[in-house]
Amino acid sequence: MPLPELQLLERIRNAAKSSRSARVRVGIGDDCAVLRTVPAEDWLVTTDLSLQGVHFRLDCDSAEAIGHRVLLRGLSDIAAMGGEPVAAFLSLAVPSRTPQRWVDDFTRGLLRLARRYKVELAGGDTAESRSGIVADIVVVGRVPRGDVVLRSGAQVGDEVYVTGHLGESAGTLAELKARRKPPASVPEPRVAVGRWLRAHRAATAMIDLSDGLSTDLAHICQQSKVGAVVEASAIPLPAWLRRRNENKALALALHGGEDYELLFTARPSRHIPRFIAGVRVTRIGRIVDGRRVWLQGTLGKTLLRAKGWQHFTGRS
Amino acid sequence: MPLPELQLLERIRNAAKSSRSARVRVGIGDDCAVLRTVPAEDWLVTTDLSLQGVHFRLDCDSAEAIGHRVLLRGLSDIAAMGGEPVAAFLSLAVPSRTPQRWVDDFTRGLLRLARRYKVELAGGDTAESRSGIVADIVVVGRVPRGDVVLRSGAQVGDEVYVTGHLGESAGTLAELKARRKPPASVPEPRVAVGRWLRAHRAATAMIDLSDGLSTDLAHICQQSKVGAVVEASAIPLPAWLRRRNENKALALALHGGEDYELLFTARPSRHIPRFIAGVRVTRIGRIVDGRRVWLQGTLGKTLLRAKGWQHFTGRS
Repeated sequence: MPLPELQLLERIRNAAKSSRSARVRVGIGDDCAVLRTVPAEDWLVTTDLSLQGVHFRLDCDSAEAIGHRVLLRGLSDIAAMGGEPVAAFLSLAVPSRTPQRWVDDFTRGLLRLARRYKVELAGGDTAESRSGIVADIVVVGRVPRGDVVLRSGAQVGDEVYVTGHLGESAGTLAELKARRKPPASVPEPRVAVGRWLRAHRAATAMIDLSDGLSTDLAHICQQSKVGAVVEASAIPLPAWLRRRNENKALALALHGGEDYELLFTARPSRHIPRFIAGVRVTRIGRIVDGRRVWLQGTLGKTLLRAKGWQHFTGRS
Repeated sequence: MPLPELQLLERIRNAAKSSRSARVRVGIGDDCAVLRTVPAEDWLVTTDLSLQGVHFRLDCDSAEAIGHRVLLRGLSDIAAMGGEPVAAFLSLAVPSRTPQRWVDDFTRGLLRLARRYKVELAGGDTAESRSGIVADIVVVGRVPRGDVVLRSGAQVGDEVYVTGHLGESAGTLAELKARRKPPASVPEPRVAVGRWLRAHRAATAMIDLSDGLSTDLAHICQQSKVGAVVEASAIPLPAWLRRRNENKALALALHGGEDYELLFTARPSRHIPRFIAGVRVTRIGRIVDGRRVWLQGTLGKTLLRAKGWQHFTGRS
């Protein structure tokens, strides 16, 4: 049976009616979506590709959780620039054997998150996949003109901060693979924290933790042309993960991806509250000369290599 | 060997440096691209998913031609709204066995078209695919505020027009499958024609012919709540295709997709030039009451069913 493409689009379109935004003049159903701009704003655009077997697995994640994570990846990129999300676009390819139920649950998970952040699903594309499920999400956001927080603004002497706890996602997956039941955890995009830091001009550089601390901090250092020292003992680990295995917890926090917390730098003279928008903020290190990232442990300082951890292969 | 993701992104980023636009403040390399808006404009956003085995085949198309078509699909959607393309975003997943050469050639085909239309490749995402090649293209465009040409504006009595010739893409593929050599043809996005029609307020409704005339005219009729009559003898067929088999040529022109010509309607009192921006424009029918699309032939009027033709399965 060929995939009823129009029907799939129709179902997504109907479901999307619950997520309307005044900035979207024309949503799903024409050749393009039409977005209305406001003079003193810049627009942000981000795209994130999620593939079955690479970014998610049907036997580990519910369709709703996958829909949530697909959109989360885009919202988190908007947060990392200090922006407000406005509209999302979903390109979805599913094999014809995929149950309609799966698509409905996926869409429900995605749209529930969209409504919470006032994001309209304003367009996209659907196709029949000959192999696994493919979902590409585009999120468009806005930010007051010129106020964006880039990766490239970190300066020697800045302090390095993260929101929330690190290693939660990788730890949860490790538990599932070991057939143990981890505490339920659903990552949230840190939109309110990003907005606060941008509005208070508190952050000199910012990125979201999608690939893992070691990789994402390397991105900031590369683009800011600086180095960094991370204090191992300062990294905020989830209590449950620390209890199970402290060393493994640290490795997951350093290299496990998909925590979607914010990593940012601030001038040392700048007071950063311990909680922003209800989310804990922890100082984990400082920016130094050079281009290398170091891990400061109790036994001394070692090079922290960027090894973004690949979820399902365990490859790094 | 795992796909060198960063290397792939790096190569695309370097290649993309040739396609800079003043509207793009921040391109590839941060969490989001940053686009600068101009007060009296609306923004257009379109996404198009291209899958190996569904939208293209490695044994029929060169990597360069595939790169061209991937971007063409997005530019054509911007043209169909009467807009100007500004920036493109590419999400690309390739299997690790894909030769670097293929990716370079694909990128070259895409960027050559981007430069010609002054479109900056401003971001995207890369991943390792476990199966075929996946390319999702996002194009952002601009249009003077409120001036967009929608699918929904056709009125009873309007004339129906198309640009160029129809059936060229499907005819070319049919020749290749029959192991004959078709004339070389590369579809172009009709950006200048769409802009002319918008600027002169000449079109009441417009769509690009990506799925085929029968399907795309049905979209206009559905959204405008009207019907249409197409005159079979008026449809502009490529001369080479007509010579080989006139009846087959007509079927390919009606149902073959991927011509990327514009289909539009205009008030009967409105003079439409026979050439716009150097492209031939042909009147092929009129808008009527009801919701059905009819084909007027020499033997009478028959219902024209929307059957978008699927390139590689031949399924309709």
